[in-house]
Amino acid sequence: MHGKVYLVGAGPGDPELLTVRALYLLQQADAVVHDRLVSRAIMSCVNPEASLHDVGKVAACRAGMQDDINALLLSLSKTHQHVVRLKGGDPFVFGRGGEEQLYLHQHGVQVEVVPGITAAIGAAASLGIPLTHRGLASSMRVVTGHLRDNRGLELDWASLSDPSCTLVFYMAMANCGHIAQALIQHGRDADTPIALAQDATLKNQRWGLGTLQTLPQLAETFSPPALLIIGDVVRLHPDYPRPRAPAQDTRHVEPFGALT
Amino acid sequence: MHGKVYLVGAGPGDPELLTVRALYLLQQADAVVHDRLVSRAIMSCVNPEASLHDVGKVAACRAGMQDDINALLLSLSKTHQHVVRLKGGDPFVFGRGGEEQLYLHQHGVQVEVVPGITAAIGAAASLGIPLTHRGLASSMRVVTGHLRDNRGLELDWASLSDPSCTLVFYMAMANCGHIAQALIQHGRDADTPIALAQDATLKNQRWGLGTLQTLPQLAETFSPPALLIIGDVVRLHPDYPRPRAPAQDTRHVEPFGALT
Ligand SMILES: C[S@@+](CC[C@H](N)C(=O)[O-])C[C@H]1O[C@@H](n2cnc3c(N)ncnc32)[C@H](O)[C@@H]1O
Ligand SMILES: C[S@@+](CC[C@H](N)C(=O)[O-])C[C@H]1O[C@@H](n2cnc3c(N)ncnc32)[C@H](O)[C@@H]1O
Repeated sequence: MHGKVYLVGAGPGDPELLTVRALYLLQQADAVVHDRLVSRAIMSCVNPEASLHDVGKVAACRAGMQDDINALLLSLSKTHQHVVRLKGGDPFVFGRGGEEQLYLHQHGVQVEVVPGITAAIGAAASLGIPLTHRGLASSMRVVTGHLRDNRGLELDWASLSDPSCTLVFYMAMANCGHIAQALIQHGRDADTPIALAQDATLKNQRWGLGTLQTLPQLAETFSPPALLIIGDVVRLHPDYPRPRAPAQDTRHVEPFGALT
Repeated sequence: MHGKVYLVGAGPGDPELLTVRALYLLQQADAVVHDRLVSRAIMSCVNPEASLHDVGKVAACRAGMQDDINALLLSLSKTHQHVVRLKGGDPFVFGRGGEEQLYLHQHGVQVEVVPGITAAIGAAASLGIPLTHRGLASSMRVVTGHLRDNRGLELDWASLSDPSCTLVFYMAMANCGHIAQALIQHGRDADTPIALAQDATLKNQRWGLGTLQTLPQLAETFSPPALLIIGDVVRLHPDYPRPRAPAQDTRHVEPFGALT
């Protein structure tokens, strides 16, 4: 008899941002395979009888790691009834959930995917920056700032320069200089507001505000896990400098220079 | 003494996808202002002593409605300690949360934003479609398919045609023909896979698979609330037709014609 594998999103870190379903599954789990983005407070919700498997420590560093995780999940599904694969944020947003689901399906294992609050959504709520806003942003795009094989960041920069779209870069702390330069080169205003958020939703959360121009310098003081939010909506952050005579309509707020 | 207003995301509908924090706040609330996307099962979690204010019925139809909601929240904050503004999905993704936060801040009211599972993330998990996937999609964009004032859908179609980006259109059921045509015109392959999901994560969920070419016809059988997912990741859905000899690497799966 085979067990079932649950690909569960743990959210951005604050344990209160677990979904009710995720919490229930952690309490029922016979085995939990987790990665390093999952906070200690969340791990303390896991059924104390469950076997724990930390696969996150070197995930980013070693090729073949994903194959090992797939094999571990398959093997646990043969000996345990409720196997939880616990991931930071949402399993399907830069979470390799698709690869694990595909592999398990190919081996006849039942899979349930439980969505989680992805880091962009958690950070936006925590900072008070709406990701979309009438007149400021009619779409929002999450982008990886780190491509595999350490090839350069070969993104479609023209497509990324649509000013009506809020951008949120994940895994981008090492590439903020490159991102700022490429967006400005492709027509995005150097005064476009940006925010950085590290350990968003956690007690040790840090954040900073700036512009595309000041981003490279500001980013030097941030370490992973951190997010880069780019777009006019950042101006709605309560601490973003306002013009002397507050405009009624935030769309007409003047751009600012360096803020850092 | 002023109360505090909590802008709370209720998630896509399944009550188990409430966050632990949202559930706690619903149980503590003195007043709840909710819209029509919030399911009955979720409303049954609310403190039975709380006063309920349904403001969703005509929200889309009447100009000035948002002003009335803002005024209601302000007035409730003067008479109640814990006022919950409950919204479908996440408050900051097409949820007008930014407007309410700004208004309340301008009137000196304390605001806390509690993120929720946005419909795109909930639907993707429920259907088993990863929103990003190595080799198939390095970014994901949520877009409104309905712009205010019933102006045409004036989107930056060139920017939306980046094939490495999964698109998820909200509020788009009336405009699927227009969206398919514009994307094909701007270079996106007519065989690009699409999925539609109605009432995602709820018991009455419906979904369908197709291509940009077959989308207009398929969309006629769907009603709001529904989402349109566009991109190669849709091919990873377990029911998406596979080529006869299954390719090892899903990146090399051949495109298909009409599926509907
Ligand atoms: C491998 S990705 C996993 C993303 C995750 N699946 C999600 O949906 O949030 C790791 C990246 O997520 C972002 N991230 C995750 N948790 C975060 C947090 N609490 N604060 C800021 N960024 C975070 C960072 O950019 C980090 O480098
Ligand atoms: C005004 S927007 C609100 C979006 C919400 N704030 C969120 O983050 O999901 C309403 C649109 O969300 C989408 N939506 C919300 N719940 C949904 C569900 N359960 N299934 C499919 N689409 C849904 C539909 O496109 C609907 O027209």
